[in-house]
Amino acid sequence: MAAPLLCARDLQFMLYELFDSESLTQRPRYADHSVETFNAAIDTAQSIAEKYFLPIRKKVDEQQPTFDGKNVHMIPEIKVAVDAATQAGFVSSTSDYELGGMQLPLIVAGVASSYLSAAGSTTMGYLALSSANANLIENHGSAEQIETWVKPIRSGRFAGTMAMTEPSAGSGLADLTTTAIPAGDGTYRIRGNKIFISGGDHELNENIVHLVLARIKGAPAGVKGISLFIVPKILVNADGSLGERNDVALAGLFHKMGGRGQTSTALSFGENDGAVGYLVGEEHRGLSYMFHMMNEARVMVGTNAACTALTGYQYSLDYARERLQGRLPSCKDPSSAPVNIVEHADVRRMLLAQKAYAEGAFALCMLGSQLADDKNTALSEKERLDAHTLLDFLTPIIKTWPSEYGPKANDLAIQILGGHGYINEHPVEMFYRDNRLNPIHEGTTGIQSLDLLGRKLPMNNLAGYRAFLATVQSTIDEALTGDLAPIADNLSGAVATLEKTTEHLLGAMLEKPIDLVMANSVKYLELFGHVVIAWLWLRQGLVAQSGLAAKPHEADTHFYLGKLQAMKYFYNFELPLIDVWSKNLLDLDATFYEMDNNWF
Amino acid sequence: MAAPLLCARDLQFMLYELFDSESLTQRPRYADHSVETFNAAIDTAQSIAEKYFLPIRKKVDEQQPTFDGKNVHMIPEIKVAVDAATQAGFVSSTSDYELGGMQLPLIVAGVASSYLSAAGSTTMGYLALSSANANLIENHGSAEQIETWVKPIRSGRFAGTMAMTEPSAGSGLADLTTTAIPAGDGTYRIRGNKIFISGGDHELNENIVHLVLARIKGAPAGVKGISLFIVPKILVNADGSLGERNDVALAGLFHKMGGRGQTSTALSFGENDGAVGYLVGEEHRGLSYMFHMMNEARVMVGTNAACTALTGYQYSLDYARERLQGRLPSCKDPSSAPVNIVEHADVRRMLLAQKAYAEGAFALCMLGSQLADDKNTALSEKERLDAHTLLDFLTPIIKTWPSEYGPKANDLAIQILGGHGYINEHPVEMFYRDNRLNPIHEGTTGIQSLDLLGRKLPMNNLAGYRAFLATVQSTIDEALTGDLAPIADNLSGAVATLEKTTEHLLGAMLEKPIDLVMANSVKYLELFGHVVIAWLWLRQGLVAQSGLAAKPHEADTHFYLGKLQAMKYFYNFELPLIDVWSKNLLDLDATFYEMDNNWF
Repeated sequence: MAAPLLCARDLQFMLYELFDSESLTQRPRYADHSVETFNAAIDTAQSIAEKYFLPIRKKVDEQQPTFDGKNVHMIPEIKVAVDAATQAGFVSSTSDYELGGMQLPLIVAGVASSYLSAAGSTTMGYLALSSANANLIENHGSAEQIETWVKPIRSGRFAGTMAMTEPSAGSGLADLTTTAIPAGDGTYRIRGNKIFISGGDHELNENIVHLVLARIKGAPAGVKGISLFIVPKILVNADGSLGERNDVALAGLFHKMGGRGQTSTALSFGENDGAVGYLVGEEHRGLSYMFHMMNEARVMVGTNAACTALTGYQYSLDYARERLQGRLPSCKDPSSAPVNIVEHADVRRMLLAQKAYAEGAFALCMLGSQLADDKNTALSEKERLDAHTLLDFLTPIIKTWPSEYGPKANDLAIQILGGHGYINEHPVEMFYRDNRLNPIHEGTTGIQSLDLLGRKLPMNNLAGYRAFLATVQSTIDEALTGDLAPIADNLSGAVATLEKTTEHLLGAMLEKPIDLVMANSVKYLELFGHVVIAWLWLRQGLVAQSGLAAKPHEADTHFYLGKLQAMKYFYNFELPLIDVWSKNLLDLDATFYEMDNNWF
Repeated sequence: MAAPLLCARDLQFMLYELFDSESLTQRPRYADHSVETFNAAIDTAQSIAEKYFLPIRKKVDEQQPTFDGKNVHMIPEIKVAVDAATQAGFVSSTSDYELGGMQLPLIVAGVASSYLSAAGSTTMGYLALSSANANLIENHGSAEQIETWVKPIRSGRFAGTMAMTEPSAGSGLADLTTTAIPAGDGTYRIRGNKIFISGGDHELNENIVHLVLARIKGAPAGVKGISLFIVPKILVNADGSLGERNDVALAGLFHKMGGRGQTSTALSFGENDGAVGYLVGEEHRGLSYMFHMMNEARVMVGTNAACTALTGYQYSLDYARERLQGRLPSCKDPSSAPVNIVEHADVRRMLLAQKAYAEGAFALCMLGSQLADDKNTALSEKERLDAHTLLDFLTPIIKTWPSEYGPKANDLAIQILGGHGYINEHPVEMFYRDNRLNPIHEGTTGIQSLDLLGRKLPMNNLAGYRAFLATVQSTIDEALTGDLAPIADNLSGAVATLEKTTEHLLGAMLEKPIDLVMANSVKYLELFGHVVIAWLWLRQGLVAQSGLAAKPHEADTHFYLGKLQAMKYFYNFELPLIDVWSKNLLDLDATFYEMDNNWF
């Protein structure tokens, strides 16, 4: 068996047929790029994934990092893999040439790093965090901070983390208690405990740059009194060389169900003299800066969930094509040969559902990257603003839908392998464990749903919501004139359901207790997510349809027919569920709101 | 934190209020029993669970058995726990007094062993398999076989297994290749390889009695040429003492995602001279005997899935009541105190869904036990036959619905704990891993669905199906006259949907390709399962309603209100989904049937 990590044909389809990424080369920032340079970056990532990440994937899962009370130990192969990817430029794939970057569009960098994610999502995690950390400092830090911290991160000398969560403040950032006291020399002394800090300690790099949320003494309560600090593991001298150890200590490692290669740490800041911290930007504005990193991290989480789903799909497909087992219901002759299990309709159900979830989720994440590229580099200010508006609105869905449906895809991969899927001879049980983190970190599904319904929807007079509706309508209009008109009609009905539901909830916000209106917000996000994915499947169907019209060679014909069938699966089996969810929302169902703690 | 393993009040509700188990004491077989003796057995199981099983649960998960090439090694605490439960009678809780049993009804034994399951499902697995093995031999073996094998199993000297699966024949039993050759002395020589044999080797007992499916030389192809053999690990002398080692070798251990305490083994039979085997019953009828054990095992799998869901629910409920985090959407004051997370509507959603899944699934499994008791001991032959018919029909649903929805409940328990749910400081991630086996073993969800639609439904002129409809109708009729009439109406509509769908499929079986009709059989089982669970929730609601009418003390009032709210959850959020599934079935949706292998 040699299942591919990802379907290369599908990645090309997404990049160049669905999202027309070639057109990005017309923008000044990407003028030196071409389809060839884009593909070269993707090929490099694939090679590194196959050479360094894939061979150690199982070992990384089975031999998780240990803590001897002072230092973290992990298998040395992780450093070899991280170094190879860093040297190939994957901590700086989107940053400026002058900063040593590849200056790639996010959408291309996203496809490239998908190979690394699919081959070793936890090893990839170190790189992704470092990159997001550097991006934040690059955007909100001073020139000196960029020089001191960003450059060594991009070159792989330093790593980066984000340190938000505290033992008593997980989703409730307003309650975080880590303090910062001005030291009089422009620096601060940081004191507090942080937990679940991914990559919070290790020896993969010379130094680790923590981005820490803390409260400056006297700051207002709540999220408006939070500031952001750079707190390095080791202080850095004026010439960039390493100085003394900062007052940051590893308190322990958590043992996770999955994602075991990446340390999850408890860190103590300032147990002795206070950890030296450097304020990023202005006081009390830390959370808004952190959201720069967090929004990026949320798209990354969605992408990771989608990649894990994609690679599980490829693995179970390969298994289903090779494994012989049983006969079709129509075959009554026990002496006939068993069939490959891919011939069983129920196995095809589980494969098609995986394809619909995984490729739908991946398309959504690529849309997120495309919007981020447009926000940064589209030629007109209006295009940049429009992209920003739509991306901001869709971020909770880009984070959540793949995180919820990616694990469902991996669940089906296990089921296809049966007993063999439940044991560690195959990686699908690991995918299932790894992917389960995604609905939790960077804002749980519950938090994302409150963000969508309570904040992103009403924001700016419904600007993001309206931008989404307009975009979908243009796809529907295009499709209504062709062979996919029935699908377009179907989507049109779903959009009407979404609009009716949304208007009802907006009205209720004015008239009913807000806690009641928000009580079913997860259903609203799920409904919205299904409409978004249905829209993206219609878009994939339209591309496939026109691809078929060009009478391609046999392999492409099969590929496009598969896209149309996955679209059909989504429209027949998934999209109709929104009617049930819509009814719950239109009823302002009070089952949860009225439930009393004592009744459980 | 000290979450109860299970909710004792709920177990009493199920046993005595919902299923009226006290009435069983009027049957001759249970004449020596009373509510007091029933509860004493349950209390004993609870004590053993809390004293021996719960304290080692985490260690059992983390230190899985190892194989040194010859023997299996496991932590000694498992033997202590297994011995304690055996000595208390839990390998023979339902068997005759003369065989050393407690002669308990299955429904009572089921509740008792639920504590063992919740506290350590894998440790419990050894006992459950031994018990089912002994039950099979007791029913189909000779008097000598009962003497030689059953008695030592009941007393705990020997353990029992079932050995069906082979490397190339998992779900496809028709293709199994293990052979049996008559040795001329009435015994056989068995040769072949079996995999995924739970408890296939260990040193917890003096001997292990394997029940092995094999083909006698010259037997017909397919399932009609399979015979059943007793193949002990160690041969037994005429006086019952242990003799020579049989030709059965452990080839290896599998490493499972969950259920790690119970060895999953690859066994080689007869690599040298052939393993000595003793035919059970008649030649070529082995599969029908094995189904005796398998049907029992299927109800056990459902019960295990339900118990794991129940205990995860209790754990996450306890956590939600203690954990402070965030504020309600209506609270805009960041200096106000954070609330217990049970106050958040979305956490209540996740708790109520768990309650509805877990208690619904457990009620279904107890119904299965009640039907098995009625089948064995109801006073009239008609009652016994009717119970047999209904149990046989419902078995695929009793096995599958809890196995599919139990893991969904555990998934929600993780989500309530957030990051804390993903690490091994709490057991919910283990429940999630453990429970994932249940949709696979003892017949996958796909296999159960084919069994329901293709075999159990049409069987005996729809007798099982009609018996189910009649039973449900009597509940509806009862409810239509009271406060729950709207719920009864709702169920009535769901039954009509089920009937319309069923008739359509039965008609299609005569007219359309059978492979097309069976292509959506998993959706049919899911639809049917939801109607069954909705019915059981109405029954629970009726009991709660009449409990409330009696103006009970405060704790019971809360308990009954909780039952009604969980019922409401199921009717508002879950039952409406059947309309979507019904439409797929009425359309004879061909998406999977038509999907081509090349299109993936």
